[in-house]
Amino acid sequence: MQQTAILLLHCPDKLGIITEITKFITDNNGNIVYLDQYVDKIDGRFFMRVEWELDNFAIPAEKISEYLETLYGQRYEMEFKLSFSSKKPRMALFVSKMSHCLYDLLARYNAGELDVEIPCIVSNHEDLRYVADQFGIPYYVWSINKDWSNKQEVEKAEMDLMKEKQIDFIVLARYMQIISEEMIRKFPHNIINIHHSFLPAFIGAKPYHQAYQRGVKIIGATSHYVTSELDAGPIIEQDVVRITHKDTPETLVLKGKDLEKIVLSRAVKKHIERKILTYHNKTIIFS
Amino acid sequence: MQQTAILLLHCPDKLGIITEITKFITDNNGNIVYLDQYVDKIDGRFFMRVEWELDNFAIPAEKISEYLETLYGQRYEMEFKLSFSSKKPRMALFVSKMSHCLYDLLARYNAGELDVEIPCIVSNHEDLRYVADQFGIPYYVWSINKDWSNKQEVEKAEMDLMKEKQIDFIVLARYMQIISEEMIRKFPHNIINIHHSFLPAFIGAKPYHQAYQRGVKIIGATSHYVTSELDAGPIIEQDVVRITHKDTPETLVLKGKDLEKIVLSRAVKKHIERKILTYHNKTIIFS
Amino acid sequence: MQQTAILLLHCPDKLGIITEITKFITDNNGNIVYLDQYVDKIDGRFFMRVEWELDNFAIPAEKISEYLETLYGQRYEMEFKLSFSSKKPRMALFVSKMSHCLYDLLARYNAGELDVEIPCIVSNHEDLRYVADQFGIPYYVWSINKDWSNKQEVEKAEMDLMKEKQIDFIVLARYMQIISEEMIRKFPHNIINIHHSFLPAFIGAKPYHQAYQRGVKIIGATSHYVTSELDAGPIIEQDVVRITHKDTPETLVLKGKDLEKIVLSRAVKKHIERKILTYHNKTIIFS
Amino acid sequence: MQQTAILLLHCPDKLGIITEITKFITDNNGNIVYLDQYVDKIDGRFFMRVEWELDNFAIPAEKISEYLETLYGQRYEMEFKLSFSSKKPRMALFVSKMSHCLYDLLARYNAGELDVEIPCIVSNHEDLRYVADQFGIPYYVWSINKDWSNKQEVEKAEMDLMKEKQIDFIVLARYMQIISEEMIRKFPHNIINIHHSFLPAFIGAKPYHQAYQRGVKIIGATSHYVTSELDAGPIIEQDVVRITHKDTPETLVLKGKDLEKIVLSRAVKKHIERKILTYHNKTIIFS
Repeated sequence: MQQTAILLLHCPDKLGIITEITKFITDNNGNIVYLDQYVDKIDGRFFMRVEWELDNFAIPAEKISEYLETLYGQRYEMEFKLSFSSKKPRMALFVSKMSHCLYDLLARYNAGELDVEIPCIVSNHEDLRYVADQFGIPYYVWSINKDWSNKQEVEKAEMDLMKEKQIDFIVLARYMQIISEEMIRKFPHNIINIHHSFLPAFIGAKPYHQAYQRGVKIIGATSHYVTSELDAGPIIEQDVVRITHKDTPETLVLKGKDLEKIVLSRAVKKHIERKILTYHNKTIIFS
Repeated sequence: MQQTAILLLHCPDKLGIITEITKFITDNNGNIVYLDQYVDKIDGRFFMRVEWELDNFAIPAEKISEYLETLYGQRYEMEFKLSFSSKKPRMALFVSKMSHCLYDLLARYNAGELDVEIPCIVSNHEDLRYVADQFGIPYYVWSINKDWSNKQEVEKAEMDLMKEKQIDFIVLARYMQIISEEMIRKFPHNIINIHHSFLPAFIGAKPYHQAYQRGVKIIGATSHYVTSELDAGPIIEQDVVRITHKDTPETLVLKGKDLEKIVLSRAVKKHIERKILTYHNKTIIFS
Repeated sequence: MQQTAILLLHCPDKLGIITEITKFITDNNGNIVYLDQYVDKIDGRFFMRVEWELDNFAIPAEKISEYLETLYGQRYEMEFKLSFSSKKPRMALFVSKMSHCLYDLLARYNAGELDVEIPCIVSNHEDLRYVADQFGIPYYVWSINKDWSNKQEVEKAEMDLMKEKQIDFIVLARYMQIISEEMIRKFPHNIINIHHSFLPAFIGAKPYHQAYQRGVKIIGATSHYVTSELDAGPIIEQDVVRITHKDTPETLVLKGKDLEKIVLSRAVKKHIERKILTYHNKTIIFS
Repeated sequence: MQQTAILLLHCPDKLGIITEITKFITDNNGNIVYLDQYVDKIDGRFFMRVEWELDNFAIPAEKISEYLETLYGQRYEMEFKLSFSSKKPRMALFVSKMSHCLYDLLARYNAGELDVEIPCIVSNHEDLRYVADQFGIPYYVWSINKDWSNKQEVEKAEMDLMKEKQIDFIVLARYMQIISEEMIRKFPHNIINIHHSFLPAFIGAKPYHQAYQRGVKIIGATSHYVTSELDAGPIIEQDVVRITHKDTPETLVLKGKDLEKIVLSRAVKKHIERKILTYHNKTIIFS
């Protein structure tokens, strides 16, 4: 596999943008290996993901961003993000007591399905240290007092760890703690959560019990970027499973666990592949 | 097909109920053709649907209810509902301007899939009269003023019609009007609505626009019994379809229409077959 | 809505095709309202659908095809098909005795969901004439003898009718007759069938009985273009529904009917919107 | 949790069986905690699963089977299987090189979701020994020669191990070897396989490549009991996922892996819970 550049961009929709960008790449001997674009007619906005091989590319990798800004950035009011396949994203996993999402991500990681580094696992409980040990990944525990008296201090330590480990994004793999606004600001649209309901139904605590109480016939799970409003960030992926009146909160939890891990892993994979753009609290997911 | 008796019952779960009821039927020469039961361990409640052939049944049809009440009703604190396959339920359809649910129900009716009578279609608009005419079913229109000044009067007329036509249950096939509490009380758990969202998400008006705004990746439709609280009655059936960021409110409406008609028709069919029990604002759906 | 030109094309994948085509359109003042492309890396083939407004387009509609052929056709070994939104496709429906697919298509047609003309319905039985009458569409019946002795003669009459009615494509809406190779050749990838199984499982007759016999836990329906090999043409759309051991061949038929009509209607809609390309017995479906 | 007896039975459908069996249990002071039954009207056969608490049961556990045989076995031509919640089934896992199903089962096992013993993992390759080591489960490798010259010898060794470990049932968690008839006979309906297609479509080798070639729009996975005919045993569970023309054999493999592990784990769980009856090459799955 050759090294590639990955460009994610969006801007007001104008005639000829796709032509210009693809011409820029091909004129400079870049071989385009992926191109997908989408026009939001309602917002009048253009979204694009393009990936090209760098081997014979006329512009040095470290200069591409500058060229893009100069040539198109201002002219098209374009917001863009350039990354390189050679730089693996670094992911931190936050967990509490349930192992299913953690195992699912680590099993994929071990099988080579996720092109990512996992420098650390963080938790508020000792419970899952044995899983981290199984996979040889450092496990850090900071207990949070029930009265949250040490919450700020813990988050400070966690953020120091994120900095030390050069973490690019955080995955809350059933981490049962609220993340502070300060931490969210440090990782804008780079904290991925799994909520165990079909959002926006059953926001907040104990969604399976809420679902049982309401008597729904289908339950779901939702992976989304964390924003300051609870369970209201841009949705990345959702899935559902059919249930019946025979299900209890306990069987809902079991069925839901299968949804949660698959939905979270799909979202994480899309994020790692840099196939997600966010705009107006929604996601554009490239195929 | 022989005539059958259909018994739906629920009561506090006690040892031996199923034995007693089935023994009662078989001892009196009833041939059981359907039996399904369910115990809600959390509420400690027993639910059952049993259907048997009446041909050689020792007790006359019109006396069975009395026998059941005497033998088991009080003893088991049993609520039950007895009906007969020989008596087709009579269904009124309420519609506004969209034809998809109406066509779906009438096409099934014509194909013999629904064992029901449809004595009338009621609307607040003239728009769908041509559909009623296509199927030769009387169509009644009462316009409701925007300020609801004639709402009470219209509902009075509608209820008179229901009485005259001996209607057993009402189906709101995308009828875009709130039903008054008085009317709901006259048809307890006998008014079936289709809501164009995955309840409890997106209660109220314009759910597809709400879904678009929220950026969900799956939309749904929900059929439920109408109760006095808006979109909060017992859910009978739900289904969903996957969407993407490419969908607009318009394409959501189109995709949703397919869900709505299938979900509503499934719910109506279960109701007609007397396979639904309601308890604590939930439904038990027999297979 | 302005009139648009719709271009579907495929050719060996080469650098710069998308740039050239979009440049051709925008240089001639065409406003692109739809663009989607796909590269099959395995076959090294490029597929594209582009749609643009004709109002200020510099090239007259009747000349566009010639220009495309001259400028790109040979150079890129491009196969393309140009059509115009102003020309509604003309669809013939072939049916036998089951009404569900017919009703579903006609109800959508009446609701304005299908941008199509339906000049005729053809059948080998009188059974569904009443449906055609309900919708005021001419209904033609040619019985086919059990020994197929008049099969050739009937197909001759049907093809004369297709010619007279200027039919663009045929939809077999549960038409229970084999189509001859001659007729298939006259409508290459323009005859759409619905097969009541999850192809390639259960090819041929009585697929629901086959599914019952095999004890599958999910059944499906498949819409595909008809080719000379039975049930083996390019698949357009499929969907499935979960079943259980409680289902009988009869309940499978009922559940399957819901699948069939939705799957067929989705396929027909995509075809009408000219969003399907076929290549190597597969379909590329644009969104 | 009290110890329970679990009775799975089937017999020709006759009046009063359910009454007799439940009366037998309750008369002997057994508290029924689970009861589900199903009548196959087409085959005229009755199926039942009943579970009751043993604490005050009048008949000693080791005598119940004898009583059932004497009282009902011959009289009703009943086939039944009695087991006890106190006796955990012992499961052997057979794997080759892919880890996803193995990880999924072991992660559930570790989380306490599967009430089972796993005394050994068997493979024809060393590749997954590290997974077995992570979970501290003995891992046995017998390579099979390409010409199968040592196949019989290897199976002999495997069966000796099964005997030594007192294995009740075998799970082929993507084990890429044919099982001999002799081994199948030793574990009748006790070898569970996962096939990576929606059976009966794409039987045999490389189903994802077959699916790619055929151009299907949905792929599936099937868990079934192994019988002597390849991929033709009783189906326990199936699930599917939607794909598009953009998928390659490689992405199908990735999407399929998620299906395979979930479908296999669901089937294994049902088997462990003794909720599966087989009859005429089909399964009855109790809820």
